[in-house]
Amino acid sequence: MKQTKILLDESEMPKEWYNIVADMPTPPQPVLGPDGNPIGPDALSAIFPDALIEQEVSSERWIPIPEKVREILALWRPSPLMRAHRLEEALGTPAKIYYKYEGVSPAGSHKPNTAVPQAYYNQQAGIKRLTTETGAGQWGCSIALAGQMFGIDVRVFMVKVSYQQKPFRRSMMQTWGAEVFASPSELTGVGRKMLAEDPDNPGSLGLAISEAVEEAMGDAGTNYALGSVLNHVGLHQSVIGLEAIKQFEKVGDYPDVVVACCGGGSNFAGTAFPFLGEKAAGRKVKLLAVEPSSCPTLTRGHYAYDFGDSSGLTPLMKMYTLGHDFTPPGIHAGGLRYHGDSALVSQLVHEKLIEARAIPQLSTFEAGVQFAKSEGIVPAPESNHAVSGAIEEALRCKEEGKEKTIFFTLSGHGHFDMTAYDKYFSGELTNFDYPEEAINEALSHLPKV
Amino acid sequence: MKQTKILLDESEMPKEWYNIVADMPTPPQPVLGPDGNPIGPDALSAIFPDALIEQEVSSERWIPIPEKVREILALWRPSPLMRAHRLEEALGTPAKIYYKYEGVSPAGSHKPNTAVPQAYYNQQAGIKRLTTETGAGQWGCSIALAGQMFGIDVRVFMVKVSYQQKPFRRSMMQTWGAEVFASPSELTGVGRKMLAEDPDNPGSLGLAISEAVEEAMGDAGTNYALGSVLNHVGLHQSVIGLEAIKQFEKVGDYPDVVVACCGGGSNFAGTAFPFLGEKAAGRKVKLLAVEPSSCPTLTRGHYAYDFGDSSGLTPLMKMYTLGHDFTPPGIHAGGLRYHGDSALVSQLVHEKLIEARAIPQLSTFEAGVQFAKSEGIVPAPESNHAVSGAIEEALRCKEEGKEKTIFFTLSGHGHFDMTAYDKYFSGELTNFDYPEEAINEALSHLPKV
Repeated sequence: MKQTKILLDESEMPKEWYNIVADMPTPPQPVLGPDGNPIGPDALSAIFPDALIEQEVSSERWIPIPEKVREILALWRPSPLMRAHRLEEALGTPAKIYYKYEGVSPAGSHKPNTAVPQAYYNQQAGIKRLTTETGAGQWGCSIALAGQMFGIDVRVFMVKVSYQQKPFRRSMMQTWGAEVFASPSELTGVGRKMLAEDPDNPGSLGLAISEAVEEAMGDAGTNYALGSVLNHVGLHQSVIGLEAIKQFEKVGDYPDVVVACCGGGSNFAGTAFPFLGEKAAGRKVKLLAVEPSSCPTLTRGHYAYDFGDSSGLTPLMKMYTLGHDFTPPGIHAGGLRYHGDSALVSQLVHEKLIEARAIPQLSTFEAGVQFAKSEGIVPAPESNHAVSGAIEEALRCKEEGKEKTIFFTLSGHGHFDMTAYDKYFSGELTNFDYPEEAINEALSHLPKV
Repeated sequence: MKQTKILLDESEMPKEWYNIVADMPTPPQPVLGPDGNPIGPDALSAIFPDALIEQEVSSERWIPIPEKVREILALWRPSPLMRAHRLEEALGTPAKIYYKYEGVSPAGSHKPNTAVPQAYYNQQAGIKRLTTETGAGQWGCSIALAGQMFGIDVRVFMVKVSYQQKPFRRSMMQTWGAEVFASPSELTGVGRKMLAEDPDNPGSLGLAISEAVEEAMGDAGTNYALGSVLNHVGLHQSVIGLEAIKQFEKVGDYPDVVVACCGGGSNFAGTAFPFLGEKAAGRKVKLLAVEPSSCPTLTRGHYAYDFGDSSGLTPLMKMYTLGHDFTPPGIHAGGLRYHGDSALVSQLVHEKLIEARAIPQLSTFEAGVQFAKSEGIVPAPESNHAVSGAIEEALRCKEEGKEKTIFFTLSGHGHFDMTAYDKYFSGELTNFDYPEEAINEALSHLPKV
């Protein structure tokens, strides 16, 4: 019988995270304050514990994963590496396709890989409560789960329109003991202000971030947690790629192409950076970040300093961006609707160590359905971007008659996204391509630094 | 670090199913026709392939699992055995608690363990289409997945009220390529008749079964598939217990108590029968079936001949039953709302080799939430019955200061059941206990044999 799953024992789980900064050809670009001067790590200490700030700016190659963190991760990690025999057959490709399945976590995606250490370090720092924002709820669920595991209260500001339309992830957060509030809420100054202006304000991710940060700033026992973009978040996700490398060793194979979807960049970083580290050491591998055509940050944005949030409250990071007030349409891959991208991923794309590709929405769903029919798992719409990228690579191998090994991360399952599939089947979904002028207009708002 | 997961390689997946009939103290009671005389296996051949009928009546102890079936099962099997360290700690029990997690299948429960071989044997028999019924959609999803894997068309009659209120599992079935119709439908005689009488008929499982069977009877290329109750279904589920026995060997432990929830009985049979086989060979183990108080088949029903369906169309099986027209209230553990039970489970309960316990709805949700907070996974409402039973056993160990080993099957995740948790949190859920008269009234309708 052909082998399908490549498993690791939990004793083989990585004991250290891998930090790409140690192997970057040029050091990371500094983060700038509102005056255009580099800011120090202490600027973050009002909302993050020291341990995470140290990781944020560290250039150590290996950073130990605390045992208490590994104990919780062991509830679902190491995640399986799967050989997609049936998908290969369906495509008629000579390529070998492998995927790492992160949907095995209780929250259903890769997000708990960072939520757990974030909750741990906050608990160690004496923090009693974490605040965060969530859109569709993937990140809110992950931090609710992690907070519960370390006895930390969690307060989630959930974009009001999602709170009303997507009650299931809200119930899940509540099952794990978190408080969930529709944002804008009456709990914060910024929320009250927005509600006073417009009681029917449907909320936005940027607004929910502002509420969560306001609460964390105003209370010494409360910190804030972010689910993507930042360096320490990508660092925690490196368990994905590190495990995959061990799993490929077990079957004596190695990828020619590594594919992951890319929104804020943490799933892509976690998947690709450990392979990029091996590339730095001489191994040959192509790294491909797939993003939605409707939010084409890496493929159509500028590499420039910009704010991390839409209101311009955060420090400035050098990254691929479409402009901080760029508003992508309401596509179903909500986790990929970010105007910018991880500074590290951006810099490595800029330095041509990572390739990027934008794929339109309908192609990603077509790929996701083909995957579900072959391999069983129904992927999250975000993950469909990686599936789609991998299928494109496999079909190219077919055309060229090449037996490459393709690896991608299936970052989560689609159990809470069936409405999106419904709309796909009923023909309600469309592609969306920006005219050049719309992109240029948004880019014209980039801050002058 | 304490070990959490006990994994098996797919090479360690069972290659044979275990058939309890070989080890039962008395042979299974015969199935009777409408005239009260035993019927032969050929009575089933209009809707089932010969291979499944042979398994239905087999007394062979071991039945080979075809390689093509194992290849598909390997997409998620062997499923992990987990040590619930954090739940033990939360309960303060000296007991060790282990659970087998069947929610790792693409459909999210143990049901694909039998859907896959059913689709395989039908394909081998030249069948082009399978019909089935589904309530909330667990079984419909499983057979849709399995049909897709073997290139068989699947037509699912979904109880209309679920079709309208629970669109997500419907979308999932469609993702796997199945046709899904609200039942009653215009496709069958029985459906048209019901719609003519009442165009707003909300449907029922009994009616959906009738539609699915009617289609299968009327077309030589179409067969019918059932997700529980029958002997061959429980047989296919024996992979659960067989794997668990191997997994316990790996850690040098063995359960004193084996717990599973019990509706039609296939999950319970799959979990418990392999252990019962070892008990027959001299090993000491207690087997506990947990059912809802609101559908107390094993604990308050009669052990008598009754119909398998609500309309009295099927042959008569000797089983614990509340009467075939008994209608349990609309509890959230829809998979446990069956008036009867597997004939084999029933006979073994009657012979006192299996214990049964009924647990009220609120206690099961309380247990499920405690489990989610400790172990992460949010269980299906059906599985909460097993969690609840295991917790009761663990608390008894605490009272008595006994270090027993408790094992239960977590038959599925609750990702499509968050409405139920919502209602639990908002206080809308209630317990339901039948007055003696209501049970007696239903039992008075038992057929006279």
